[in-house]
Amino acid sequence: MQIGFIGLGKMGGNMVRRLTKAGHQCHIYSDDPAERAALAAETGAVAADRLAALVAGMEVPRTLWLMVPAGKITQGVIDDLVPLLAPGDSVVDGGNSYFKDSVARAQVLAKKGLSFIDCGTSGGLYGLERGYSLMIGGDDAAVARNAPIFASLAPGIALAPRTPARENGPIAPGEEGWLHCGPPGSGHYVKMIHNGIEYGMMQAFAEGFALFASASADTVPEQYRYRLDLAAIAEVWRRGSVVSSWLLDLGADALAENPDLSAYSPRVADSGEGRWTVIAGVEQGVSVPVIAASLFERFSSHDDAAIDARMLSALRAKFGGHKGVPAANSSKG
Amino acid sequence: MQIGFIGLGKMGGNMVRRLTKAGHQCHIYSDDPAERAALAAETGAVAADRLAALVAGMEVPRTLWLMVPAGKITQGVIDDLVPLLAPGDSVVDGGNSYFKDSVARAQVLAKKGLSFIDCGTSGGLYGLERGYSLMIGGDDAAVARNAPIFASLAPGIALAPRTPARENGPIAPGEEGWLHCGPPGSGHYVKMIHNGIEYGMMQAFAEGFALFASASADTVPEQYRYRLDLAAIAEVWRRGSVVSSWLLDLGADALAENPDLSAYSPRVADSGEGRWTVIAGVEQGVSVPVIAASLFERFSSHDDAAIDARMLSALRAKFGGHKGVPAANSSKG
Amino acid sequence: MQIGFIGLGKMGGNMVRRLTKAGHQCHIYSDDPAERAALAAETGAVAADRLAALVAGMEVPRTLWLMVPAGKITQGVIDDLVPLLAPGDSVVDGGNSYFKDSVARAQVLAKKGLSFIDCGTSGGLYGLERGYSLMIGGDDAAVARNAPIFASLAPGIALAPRTPARENGPIAPGEEGWLHCGPPGSGHYVKMIHNGIEYGMMQAFAEGFALFASASADTVPEQYRYRLDLAAIAEVWRRGSVVSSWLLDLGADALAENPDLSAYSPRVADSGEGRWTVIAGVEQGVSVPVIAASLFERFSSHDDAAIDARMLSALRAKFGGHKGVPAANSSKG
Amino acid sequence: MQIGFIGLGKMGGNMVRRLTKAGHQCHIYSDDPAERAALAAETGAVAADRLAALVAGMEVPRTLWLMVPAGKITQGVIDDLVPLLAPGDSVVDGGNSYFKDSVARAQVLAKKGLSFIDCGTSGGLYGLERGYSLMIGGDDAAVARNAPIFASLAPGIALAPRTPARENGPIAPGEEGWLHCGPPGSGHYVKMIHNGIEYGMMQAFAEGFALFASASADTVPEQYRYRLDLAAIAEVWRRGSVVSSWLLDLGADALAENPDLSAYSPRVADSGEGRWTVIAGVEQGVSVPVIAASLFERFSSHDDAAIDARMLSALRAKFGGHKGVPAANSSKG
Repeated sequence: MQIGFIGLGKMGGNMVRRLTKAGHQCHIYSDDPAERAALAAETGAVAADRLAALVAGMEVPRTLWLMVPAGKITQGVIDDLVPLLAPGDSVVDGGNSYFKDSVARAQVLAKKGLSFIDCGTSGGLYGLERGYSLMIGGDDAAVARNAPIFASLAPGIALAPRTPARENGPIAPGEEGWLHCGPPGSGHYVKMIHNGIEYGMMQAFAEGFALFASASADTVPEQYRYRLDLAAIAEVWRRGSVVSSWLLDLGADALAENPDLSAYSPRVADSGEGRWTVIAGVEQGVSVPVIAASLFERFSSHDDAAIDARMLSALRAKFGGHKGVPAANSSKG
Repeated sequence: MQIGFIGLGKMGGNMVRRLTKAGHQCHIYSDDPAERAALAAETGAVAADRLAALVAGMEVPRTLWLMVPAGKITQGVIDDLVPLLAPGDSVVDGGNSYFKDSVARAQVLAKKGLSFIDCGTSGGLYGLERGYSLMIGGDDAAVARNAPIFASLAPGIALAPRTPARENGPIAPGEEGWLHCGPPGSGHYVKMIHNGIEYGMMQAFAEGFALFASASADTVPEQYRYRLDLAAIAEVWRRGSVVSSWLLDLGADALAENPDLSAYSPRVADSGEGRWTVIAGVEQGVSVPVIAASLFERFSSHDDAAIDARMLSALRAKFGGHKGVPAANSSKG
Repeated sequence: MQIGFIGLGKMGGNMVRRLTKAGHQCHIYSDDPAERAALAAETGAVAADRLAALVAGMEVPRTLWLMVPAGKITQGVIDDLVPLLAPGDSVVDGGNSYFKDSVARAQVLAKKGLSFIDCGTSGGLYGLERGYSLMIGGDDAAVARNAPIFASLAPGIALAPRTPARENGPIAPGEEGWLHCGPPGSGHYVKMIHNGIEYGMMQAFAEGFALFASASADTVPEQYRYRLDLAAIAEVWRRGSVVSSWLLDLGADALAENPDLSAYSPRVADSGEGRWTVIAGVEQGVSVPVIAASLFERFSSHDDAAIDARMLSALRAKFGGHKGVPAANSSKG
Repeated sequence: MQIGFIGLGKMGGNMVRRLTKAGHQCHIYSDDPAERAALAAETGAVAADRLAALVAGMEVPRTLWLMVPAGKITQGVIDDLVPLLAPGDSVVDGGNSYFKDSVARAQVLAKKGLSFIDCGTSGGLYGLERGYSLMIGGDDAAVARNAPIFASLAPGIALAPRTPARENGPIAPGEEGWLHCGPPGSGHYVKMIHNGIEYGMMQAFAEGFALFASASADTVPEQYRYRLDLAAIAEVWRRGSVVSSWLLDLGADALAENPDLSAYSPRVADSGEGRWTVIAGVEQGVSVPVIAASLFERFSSHDDAAIDARMLSALRAKFGGHKGVPAANSSKG
């Protein structure tokens, strides 16, 4: 089917590639003329030089897929796009928007006869080849109309063996790699929690490998000083262990290339979704200690001269005459 | 090759099955005559009715593999076994022993000319078919001599696609699913950290699904009240998402069978290994907030009438006249 | 000076008592005729039977102090009150309102020429005698005009010895127990963080005493089985130790009355302020692991049959055939 | 009474001063001739130039108080001292030794007819004037014989008002600031937990003040950008608030001297006791999330280039092409 794509970066570009390969007709737009021209040349997609031209070149009812940064940029594109659309058109936000924003946007668009679909999209750079895991919120009719797009972007059932308890049953929702989760907002909500879980899993691996890596430090008690091959451990765990996972596969690759990970920054960015998941826990009264701890570790990784640590030093100095550890002396510095 | 197997429970029995299928000659022993007779009948293994008979029936140098509960039971078997062995024999502890105990045992056995090999074994009930991920500590010669056993128990390289950074290289240690990690103790050490990571990953999933499940509670703010199909979400994540993992596969299976997980206890046991991993973090000075939080959640799951919560209620009553929430009134009770 | 008081519960009633004792003229109102009559009889305050009568009975510029539950009730009183007031009047919210709400209310009132003052009030039941620690947000003129009220409610400088670094200096802001923190919202903001810290301190004590109390459990290793007198420990710490604090004083009192705290519920309520403090950390990118953990422990204290624990049990059952600990068997059940 | 004091540093020196002021006859020894001479000159204590001379100069039964660093140094002094003593003598370890070591030492000394007393000592630099909170483990007779020493070192009942529930009762154990907790080891055990609680309280304050301090960062959302006077907030909380405490008094002093705490190191040392408290939680199966988080924050404060953060960056780079935040760009760098 025909689809309009706005935002042709790392994610959006690959999604257009995957869709054209599947036979869909993509109309594309991004702010960068060179980017859209190159993608059009590569894929046969129709590039437009303005949003209005993108919309005008499509048949109604249209589907416009946004793959742009969450927050102000997404809102700006929606503000520009909505006046160009006609009742019956759909707007899909495939980015990492806050689900509360998506609920609000769906309400605004519904008043104009437009369907808003929020589509949480997981898969990253590997999605081009493997397909994307899609978590979709929206009204039934709009989601149904766009099912061919979702089916082409998703990996399909064969990417994983069927779950034993489902082996003899019909194909259930979700098994093909895309899921209509519920009303608008629910797609981004499920994606938000997905990313919260991802934070926790990543931090669990990070802690485990840190325990291995610390073995070479002089400060570590003798009995822990195993000289371990972290990359080899990642490999052995990839086959048959309980922690085997896509994140472990990625870690194994990073360690194979760069065994001490010195090529990677010790400062870790956090997207909005980890923060929102913790807020969801707090607002729902659900205990999320692991996801919160994972988020806080990222905050701390930015923090070279934190007031909180200085406060601890100050209190210790005051009550016991302890001095803070001078920087030059720090155990891992 | 020939191998003696002691302990024929869920893990040990399947390992004997996998080894006989691979052509190894298994001599087996367990305390339970019916258990050993049934396994001998099924697999063609040679059952012994006493440890001494097991040992006497094997050719030197022997390998005796223990698959019995960690702690006192493992120690008891080793104490009974060692006097029966001859210099050059190997004892493999395939259980979840504390690595500090394994180091001590290796030292005791070495004085008698025996090799102690600690083999962390992951894979659980699925190992029979998939193979076991093996993390091995021991001296080079003993590990090399027993390599055929490890290779047969392990999944082999084909269980997972090769790591991209290794695709054109020779097969590296670990890629076949077993790894000689280092000297005695290192196998159980690596397995211990593996289980610590596993705790964190499990808790991350538990928190995420708890956020979904809470949506139906009246105490949850309106905007979070999505009625979500947890089993379908697990399916969609299994294909293409960042959190795809073996644990997710298992969770998807449990949710497909029992969507509200009511068949499972809300009280979660903890093995020694989660505890030891946290102690390793503390003793090494390595921050392990996620693994610790995961362990504490398991502790808390046992705790129906905790003094710590009562202390909080007492302090609140004292300073503000707050009353604790009566049990009948508890939000999720 | 003259002041109008709305809300005569545990906190409000004592504040009226303290203010009348200090010579201020209190006009009082609550929904409960008996409550306001009794307080008027006791203190000589002027009781009004309607909000309009309360306001009408006061001289301009008036100060109306609200001591009612945060959220909808506070908003309702403000909505009823504002139309009755005249430019130049002040409204003080002494409750535990969310600072974001206070900022919004101040903006609404400012448009009508009214001053909104948010006054975080700590001290609980002991405030009548000791005085209340007051954290105040509002415009300079309004705070200055109401300074006599704040000074009478606050404990005054003598409640604590002067801070050594200030001993020879002039009396600094805050030293008399009330502080103009900044513009509207800042008072409730400072109070919110105060309560977040309080959560962490309480949980720290709760954990420590739980370690003492657990010593009598059979599941605890031998070396920890000291039979300790928790109430006596609280006493010894009250004199000269680093943890001496008002919360410890309260804990010592609770333990003296009820050594095993069995009179107190193991379910601990959480007010909004702990939640908002964690959200503040998340939204500011500031790591608050202790305050978050304290909040989550309160959430968990309500949670008798949590899906998260069941998910852990399900995963364990799936991969290893582990069974959850049956309820009847739980170590502390 | 007569007492021998070994270790005349910050703590030991002040304890000798306090004891001589109370009329006790102190015999003193330290490795540093100038230190012991100066203290002897100041206090009238009898300085010895060797351990043997110290012991020889005292009447039996002797009490020797050790105030030296925990671990190897304490063990070394005990090893040197024991052969010099006679049955009936007491050795008091007033340092922060691990309670498990104290239990072992008591057993060794008991075989020689010596009493070992472990005395957890809180109060730091302020103890000289205020007295020390003493948590004591040992056999009844030895503790009773040394009661005059404990009573003089302790603050006495007047340091704090009596607990309301005890006001009309006899003076209970602990109320004078020293407590015989139980058999050997129990004193250091109670002190260990005390320090664990202290970690949690300190971290709670550190987090709260960090939230205030962050308000000036450009990365913080507008609504949190209150410019607050941290030192004034500490003052207002000192009078009448729920968080009033000795630690707050100390924090107020540090902030009054150095409002941005820039004089204090952001690297925070950890003593053994925080670590041991977390291990106690783990070994007892008691959830101690706040104490553990406090300890981990100290670990993290040392860690400028941690492998765990690099692992997070590596995983993010692998799955999404995210780059770590370059150091020069870090939000608080």
